[in-house]
Amino acid sequence: MSLIVQKYGGTSVADVERIRDVGHRVAANRRAGHDVVVVVSAMAGETNRLLSLAKDMCPDPDRRESDVLVSTGEQVTTALLAMCLNHGEVPAVSLQGHQIRIVTDQAYSKARIQSIDDGRIRTELAAGRVVVVAGFQGVDGEDNITTLGRGGSDTSAVALAAALKADSCEIYTDVDGVYTSDPRIVPSARKLDRISYDEMLELASLGAKVLQIRSVEFAKRYAVPVHVRSSFTDTEGTWVVAEEASMENVLVSGVTSDRDEAKITLVGVPDQPGLAARVFGTIADANVVVDMIIQNASASGTTDLTFTVPKADFRQAMGLVEKLAKEVGATGVRTAEDVAKVSIVGLGMRSHAGVAAKMFRTLAEVGINIQMIATSEIKTSVVVDAKYVELAVRVLHDAFIEPKESAA
Amino acid sequence: MSLIVQKYGGTSVADVERIRDVGHRVAANRRAGHDVVVVVSAMAGETNRLLSLAKDMCPDPDRRESDVLVSTGEQVTTALLAMCLNHGEVPAVSLQGHQIRIVTDQAYSKARIQSIDDGRIRTELAAGRVVVVAGFQGVDGEDNITTLGRGGSDTSAVALAAALKADSCEIYTDVDGVYTSDPRIVPSARKLDRISYDEMLELASLGAKVLQIRSVEFAKRYAVPVHVRSSFTDTEGTWVVAEEASMENVLVSGVTSDRDEAKITLVGVPDQPGLAARVFGTIADANVVVDMIIQNASASGTTDLTFTVPKADFRQAMGLVEKLAKEVGATGVRTAEDVAKVSIVGLGMRSHAGVAAKMFRTLAEVGINIQMIATSEIKTSVVVDAKYVELAVRVLHDAFIEPKESAA
Repeated sequence: MSLIVQKYGGTSVADVERIRDVGHRVAANRRAGHDVVVVVSAMAGETNRLLSLAKDMCPDPDRRESDVLVSTGEQVTTALLAMCLNHGEVPAVSLQGHQIRIVTDQAYSKARIQSIDDGRIRTELAAGRVVVVAGFQGVDGEDNITTLGRGGSDTSAVALAAALKADSCEIYTDVDGVYTSDPRIVPSARKLDRISYDEMLELASLGAKVLQIRSVEFAKRYAVPVHVRSSFTDTEGTWVVAEEASMENVLVSGVTSDRDEAKITLVGVPDQPGLAARVFGTIADANVVVDMIIQNASASGTTDLTFTVPKADFRQAMGLVEKLAKEVGATGVRTAEDVAKVSIVGLGMRSHAGVAAKMFRTLAEVGINIQMIATSEIKTSVVVDAKYVELAVRVLHDAFIEPKESAA
Repeated sequence: MSLIVQKYGGTSVADVERIRDVGHRVAANRRAGHDVVVVVSAMAGETNRLLSLAKDMCPDPDRRESDVLVSTGEQVTTALLAMCLNHGEVPAVSLQGHQIRIVTDQAYSKARIQSIDDGRIRTELAAGRVVVVAGFQGVDGEDNITTLGRGGSDTSAVALAAALKADSCEIYTDVDGVYTSDPRIVPSARKLDRISYDEMLELASLGAKVLQIRSVEFAKRYAVPVHVRSSFTDTEGTWVVAEEASMENVLVSGVTSDRDEAKITLVGVPDQPGLAARVFGTIADANVVVDMIIQNASASGTTDLTFTVPKADFRQAMGLVEKLAKEVGATGVRTAEDVAKVSIVGLGMRSHAGVAAKMFRTLAEVGINIQMIATSEIKTSVVVDAKYVELAVRVLHDAFIEPKESAA
């Protein structure tokens, strides 16, 4: 008998019918002899309905109260699922963040879990009950209700699995796993059976929206095996697990793209110590997250400083940069809003030379110019003109990822 | 500076606009220098929406989970009102039952408040904040969410006022006070300025749906002055207060009626000890609440046993009574489903003879036959044919209640 934590997202609990389907799945696991803790999100659309009530009330709702408001969405789902299970004679009990004591910091709307008390859940499991937990929510040290940010239920589930030392954590979603690339761009993209935490972190941060990044960090830290799978089928999904020796044999696990980037270059900046700190300190103070940064010192004693920011923050960043340009004596500012980032991710890069070179060559062969390059241990990213993004993803996928066996 | 507890019911917080109106009223009280604790119900229709979700899920929803579900309605209102106040620069904080620790027993859907911890509320008030409390909800000793039953927010408000030793408890509703009778039946009915707890209890239990009975019991026990008033106007409503000497001068404070009664008579029952206990024990075991009971011993050694039950329980009660009739050797069973109870309530009855006699005479003068009579210290009730109920209420109001001064 094992202990399984299952998480069902918004589309999996979209309405009463879908919640009933979840109930059947949970009941089957229970009948198979497993202890089951179920983490649920709000019913699809509910969080947005609540947020629009808040917006109707005032343009910039108090963040503490916004968390009090939206956390009711998950509470409703827990009650409905627990009712459904009890009705089907599977004893079940719903628990909210404050009842378990999922303690977080006080960063309303993006709180981080600090501790989970497993006492109440263990008592309920020992009494033979399925425990239905409200995802996305917790309480701070003073009993204020907090929420974990979009996708936070993933993190709730993985953190619970860690606290309970569960045998596995199943993340049910509307896709059937993690793919080598976006199937809408690359029709030959295939589902990965297994992927390491580090690769998943790079893929998640690059825009593969399957798992909240923080949930993967949690899973890695506590070695929780995470099974990403579809709530619409019974097929196996993708296991996100600790690195295995065989994984290094795969050069590239995934090819991803991110269109949410804008590029800013400070041209002809006097090459002095402390300059980068000043520029990026100012931008960080405005809460703009800078992604890639590239600086090339030139022989002339000046340098070009190029970086990317989320498109939504571009106007704000430009306001700051134009002021900074004058202050630091730059000769000008160049911008490009129509750029995209394309990345390849894979553990194999660590031990295999030439992966980056092959990437650049592959892009050059189809005439795509590379505007910026950034690398990490298991990732290589390039910034290209946005109009080439699908082409870039497709040719890189062809070059690096083996075709499906069934298609071979 | 005084401490005021204000409760706003469902119609007073029906939508974002109405909640904003409540915000203005609370802000005005705050600006006048008062400490304010606001108790809110769910937005009109929300509790029913949630209950219908539960019914869609299963016909007989688990009661613990039903409380988890419906308690979200109040939570949403607290968050929206606190947002509204903060936006208007009136610092405010929402608190749920579990955050305050409004501790109840474990009778889901009709829990009773056992204790209230005033610590968190006092801290927030001392910090200059308006405290917005979710009515209707609490937690039991094991942190399970409970609700107090329909109208429970009234009880939340009065219990909080008692725990905080508030100067007054204002119950905002869609009527502007407690009336001497239902104005839809008696156009000359007038608003009472003051009424004693005991009179209010009799009126509430007789169907005047202004205040939950339990809230009046609480108010009486802890001597909380309750001000029932309209959230649509600024006029004074009705104060429900401890008995005052002058109140005895008023013979009758109110005339009420209740159509939700059905009458059952066991005819010709052998007059033996223990008979009534057997009959009403059996009916109570079936959870049917019996209201009036009348037994008249006759010279022949048999007796007629007449009682009333809620109309909804009539069929169930009849099933039991027909079996009992045979067992106890009654000669028959007579029933009347089309009856109604009409009552007069007033402290003055205690010290003034002849009130009941005047009531019977008044009814006789218009040809209304009295089927049953029951009296308590401050109330006299009669059961009459349902078709005479409005006439009975009107003639009794004319006979006992002084006309409005403005109409005099």
